[in-house]
Amino acid sequence: MIEEEPIRMQEYHVIIIGGGPAGLTAGLYAARAHLSTVLLEAMIPSGQAYMAERIENYPGFPDGISGRELVERFVRQATTSGLEIRQFNKVESVARAGKTIIIEAGGGQFSTAALIIASGAQANTLGIPGEDIYTGKGISYCATCDGAFFKNQEVAVVGGGDTALEDALYLSRLAHKVYVIHRRDELRAQKILQQRALENPAIEVIWNTVIIEIKGTEMVKTVVIENKEGGIKRELSINGVFIAVGQRPNTDFVRGIVSLDEQGYIITDAECATSVPGIFAAGDVRKKGLRQIATAVGDGALAAAAAERYIALKT
Amino acid sequence: MIEEEPIRMQEYHVIIIGGGPAGLTAGLYAARAHLSTVLLEAMIPSGQAYMAERIENYPGFPDGISGRELVERFVRQATTSGLEIRQFNKVESVARAGKTIIIEAGGGQFSTAALIIASGAQANTLGIPGEDIYTGKGISYCATCDGAFFKNQEVAVVGGGDTALEDALYLSRLAHKVYVIHRRDELRAQKILQQRALENPAIEVIWNTVIIEIKGTEMVKTVVIENKEGGIKRELSINGVFIAVGQRPNTDFVRGIVSLDEQGYIITDAECATSVPGIFAAGDVRKKGLRQIATAVGDGALAAAAAERYIALKT
Repeated sequence: MIEEEPIRMQEYHVIIIGGGPAGLTAGLYAARAHLSTVLLEAMIPSGQAYMAERIENYPGFPDGISGRELVERFVRQATTSGLEIRQFNKVESVARAGKTIIIEAGGGQFSTAALIIASGAQANTLGIPGEDIYTGKGISYCATCDGAFFKNQEVAVVGGGDTALEDALYLSRLAHKVYVIHRRDELRAQKILQQRALENPAIEVIWNTVIIEIKGTEMVKTVVIENKEGGIKRELSINGVFIAVGQRPNTDFVRGIVSLDEQGYIITDAECATSVPGIFAAGDVRKKGLRQIATAVGDGALAAAAAERYIALKT
Repeated sequence: MIEEEPIRMQEYHVIIIGGGPAGLTAGLYAARAHLSTVLLEAMIPSGQAYMAERIENYPGFPDGISGRELVERFVRQATTSGLEIRQFNKVESVARAGKTIIIEAGGGQFSTAALIIASGAQANTLGIPGEDIYTGKGISYCATCDGAFFKNQEVAVVGGGDTALEDALYLSRLAHKVYVIHRRDELRAQKILQQRALENPAIEVIWNTVIIEIKGTEMVKTVVIENKEGGIKRELSINGVFIAVGQRPNTDFVRGIVSLDEQGYIITDAECATSVPGIFAAGDVRKKGLRQIATAVGDGALAAAAAERYIALKT
């Protein structure tokens, strides 16, 4: 079947990039404010939340809920309110033409007065055998999200930066034992975190060591670790592995357009406004103190309200 | 029955003041982080959300939910996670003794390393006949919350400040007609808001006029308005009344302790930290751009994480 469509600019009051909790909440609020709004999503609406087998810390679900069901509820609520979602519509570039913002995406050219970037971030993986299989089955990339599932158990944290040690300290109150597995002989984290971690009796740092495989049955049972100096391998019994080796925000398409921090996160003010008037950012893609579904929905609502005010006053 | 209990200081890692969505979310997060946590609530856990008959904009509930049911879910989730709630426990004062924070409340003296203030705010009322009866039945104190219920209807906004005109502009995209009823002959709002409201064909300002009664059957039908110059009364047919005559944050017990803005809201940084180390603020009580359940839960999670980090490093 041959399809020929004329190339035309599709205009909206608000365009949202990214269909995780932040983007879907921004869409809910913008649509409820009767702004014509489209959400562009590279895959299907999901976000990191979608992969979670069980979410217990999003307020409103005392019995827990799967990430998939929660995101499907967000989608239904936003679309019922009038949000248009275009999935499989990857954004290639963002540019400005006067006060108008022009977006090139898989589905063509879009223009808008207000853009909300909610394209999220991805945890770096170790890329080792067993990692895919046991993600959500003992492997986690977020201690605040999943720590409570490991009460009185033994866990390992992989990494040596601030997040790794913050995770280890957080987990030390929950788990019986916390190993920090670090590939070097010194930590990169701030001194005060190092001091607190090293003096904590529940935390043991395993230096110069990498995990080369994660094994289990239904759930993680052991990790195979290798000392980088002697090459000695051993197997460590463990119930959970927290991988804290950095995150990558999805901001390549706005590099050079809005201000980013050194890790690539979008810098905003308290109202989610970026360095460019009319462009807002919400959720994990923002430079911020905590990346949770609860904070993502807060950002989404705030960014939509800020966009609404911007449109009412500045355009 | 005579009860004699020795007065003793009750110690916690984290104390939360206020049992609305922000406080309950902070409690959920702090309890999940295995911090001993108590939430002190003057009445029963509720917040402004509790009064809402139907909430459609809290993400996760596509069919809407009553405020009461949503708050009850928050309570169940937080207490199941280990949060202790002490209701009918009004806080009288907050003081510092070195790094310890001392709280005097109905239930005695409490001490903590980290305090999260989530005591909320209350909308000012008009204090006129019909206002109590029709609150939630056509009367609203929040256009962002309830505007979508008045699509293609006629509504009135009471007030002349920034919030009143922002509400009027917001509602002008939803409602067929928006009256702004203002007691003076000039508006207090910023000039740009005045200009946009006055040039908007859907908005009509009724000057020098007050509402003296709100009437209806099941829902609001009319408002009785009185011109303050001539004293002429008339009845205006209306489906909704948005009252935007200010809010009062509940911060009397920390006046002189933490920095407040000119309206009494608590000033915080992006991580919900106040001017006093160890004291955090979350939800409507904070100076912030949008007061919604979605932003309150974001604040609650963030404040708890900040408190947790504070305790891990500073105490």
